[in-house]
Amino acid sequence: MAIGELTIGQSEYKTRIEKARVVLRRRRLNALYLTNPTRILYTTGFAHITTERPIAVVIPQEGPIFFMGPHLERDHVKQDAPLISEAHTYPDFPGKVHPMRFFAKVLARKKLGPGSRIATDSLQGSAGGWGYRGPALNELMRETKFTDGREIVDGMREVKSPQEIRLLRESAKWSQVAHDFLMESIEPGMADVLVGLQASSEALGKMLKRLGGRYRQLKWGLSPVVVGFRGQVGPESAIPHAVYTKRKIRKGDVLVTEAGVEIGGYTSELERTVIVGRPSSKATRYFDAMFQAQSAALREFRAGAPCARPDEAANKSVREAGLDNCLRHHTGHGIGLDGHEPPWLDPGDPTVMAQSMVFSCEPGLYVPGYAGFRHSDTIVVTRNGKEFITKYPRDLEDLTV
Amino acid sequence: MAIGELTIGQSEYKTRIEKARVVLRRRRLNALYLTNPTRILYTTGFAHITTERPIAVVIPQEGPIFFMGPHLERDHVKQDAPLISEAHTYPDFPGKVHPMRFFAKVLARKKLGPGSRIATDSLQGSAGGWGYRGPALNELMRETKFTDGREIVDGMREVKSPQEIRLLRESAKWSQVAHDFLMESIEPGMADVLVGLQASSEALGKMLKRLGGRYRQLKWGLSPVVVGFRGQVGPESAIPHAVYTKRKIRKGDVLVTEAGVEIGGYTSELERTVIVGRPSSKATRYFDAMFQAQSAALREFRAGAPCARPDEAANKSVREAGLDNCLRHHTGHGIGLDGHEPPWLDPGDPTVMAQSMVFSCEPGLYVPGYAGFRHSDTIVVTRNGKEFITKYPRDLEDLTV
Repeated sequence: MAIGELTIGQSEYKTRIEKARVVLRRRRLNALYLTNPTRILYTTGFAHITTERPIAVVIPQEGPIFFMGPHLERDHVKQDAPLISEAHTYPDFPGKVHPMRFFAKVLARKKLGPGSRIATDSLQGSAGGWGYRGPALNELMRETKFTDGREIVDGMREVKSPQEIRLLRESAKWSQVAHDFLMESIEPGMADVLVGLQASSEALGKMLKRLGGRYRQLKWGLSPVVVGFRGQVGPESAIPHAVYTKRKIRKGDVLVTEAGVEIGGYTSELERTVIVGRPSSKATRYFDAMFQAQSAALREFRAGAPCARPDEAANKSVREAGLDNCLRHHTGHGIGLDGHEPPWLDPGDPTVMAQSMVFSCEPGLYVPGYAGFRHSDTIVVTRNGKEFITKYPRDLEDLTV
Repeated sequence: MAIGELTIGQSEYKTRIEKARVVLRRRRLNALYLTNPTRILYTTGFAHITTERPIAVVIPQEGPIFFMGPHLERDHVKQDAPLISEAHTYPDFPGKVHPMRFFAKVLARKKLGPGSRIATDSLQGSAGGWGYRGPALNELMRETKFTDGREIVDGMREVKSPQEIRLLRESAKWSQVAHDFLMESIEPGMADVLVGLQASSEALGKMLKRLGGRYRQLKWGLSPVVVGFRGQVGPESAIPHAVYTKRKIRKGDVLVTEAGVEIGGYTSELERTVIVGRPSSKATRYFDAMFQAQSAALREFRAGAPCARPDEAANKSVREAGLDNCLRHHTGHGIGLDGHEPPWLDPGDPTVMAQSMVFSCEPGLYVPGYAGFRHSDTIVVTRNGKEFITKYPRDLEDLTV
């Protein structure tokens, strides 16, 4: 593998920008103004940490792309974002002059003032994290017409490019390594959070040894390799979005795992239901029903089928097992730079699947006070079906420790 | 220490809710509608993971507090949020009926429809994460008057209670332990991200051994103990918000560390400039200037002084050292449940310091292509000065490894 293959290449970013510009020209828009960090990363490759300090990247219909943000990102943009030609920076937030007033002035100077039309993902002008406060950009610039520009980027993100799929496959490969380390270290009496952290550390060590200086983490986090249980231990596994469990792992516990590794900003999703010790007949019954529901959903992916189809199939399977009352969420979601992305495998999403869309497939069953059962796999839609991005055993025998 | 002392007690949550209700009554508002996860945690103690699925907690002027959100949080709310009496849940997002239409119906049923006045932190009605899309709540409910309610909660958060300060001190205590582990494992030839992950794991092990079943992580993350460098290694330390560095630690490197441990939702901030091997005269010069700037800022904390004062003092010290061109950000920020909170140690913040406000104090110097120099300490403002929350050596000798 050549250097650079662990990130999206510059030429793909250029293609994405050109696609956005085609839309700008067609819709007679002068510029695309982006504040969301994922949209900025998707279009320009610039990865940053979002805080209360307003940041925007502006892609004019033609001419240089420019950044507006705090002084503290100035050198970062220069060094890491070759496609961004200019950085217009303010001292800090809130500042003697509010950053949004500064942004309005820069835009006017760039001929994006009165009479111009700007597509944006935030009328406020800022991602607005933490304690951000300020005047809305569209109120400071009443003679500029702002329109919703979210779909210009998000529409492109739904179908993945070969480069994106390659990064997701590399992500899945290391998630599988991480999950193996996790499985090897599960034991009654251990704190799940520590088991996860140690397995993450072992997998990261192995990954860095292999990928070495070619690897680069783009998203803020203690570790680009994350494997663990997120609190889904024993009865707490019945809470799909548990964060933490107070007690240690016990024999007989049902555990729900999660493994994700960030490669070039992309993270696949691998989750497994794991049983500690010989599974009870009760656990086996729910496991089998979950397994059947996921299998039913997995059969329904193909280009041209509605996104609601896998969800319908999973629900039908669960109903037939008499377990409808154990459902708590739909069957899955698009996945890529964000952990959850549209389209949704949900009855309310009218989207039709296209080749190279990537989804999680993860119907779950939850029994309050007892346990939760969910596998999640990442799949890519093909002309006639799907391919697994995550390749990991799904059956009870392999998942009993 | 008794059980329960690692989180905010129920009686304090009740006090916070009562304070919010006093404001509601005074401003003749019928309810406070919250979507931001930190504000929900601050008022009710309910910790959850924010996704595209809309979630709101409503505190009426009187009567039961209720939750609106997806089915997947129903059991979670029942189990973990004793102050929330009701959960009104929808199947999933986007759903056959959009969640925001469901929320509007619930509000109407709760007599918060036409003619009522609701303070909210989101006119949209949702925190709006990831791929969320939907009609704005204030547009669905045109006969309800919505007003900005952010300050009702955020105003309370600026001055910390004795319980909050206790949790921040406990956080700092374990951050110091984590930082010691980090210092012990720094060596030329090592990958910084792995050094950080391993030190986090060791510190978490020690913390869990001591705190055992009493500890509970409230925020989503691989580990409640985070110590490392966040890419601030050698020349990359000149980028204050670096995420990752491609090369291994080398002799002579300047490193900027960070250590934070979440206790009951609260995380203090401890950062140090560390030199690998004998410091050069160049490194010593910048280190000393940074040290003097932080010392100057630290002298300016006291109840009644403007928040801009420590920043002025730090900047003056840097100017006198002839290094103004190395400044990239202001001197610090409030800190508590969020990593950055108002007030800001910034010329544009007119807030006057009050007793029990908690701040980071972290002026930094950055030399592109060479290195960055920053210590961050967390302090609490007292009547006549400040007390350190983080207690860790600041001088070059102790920080040379």
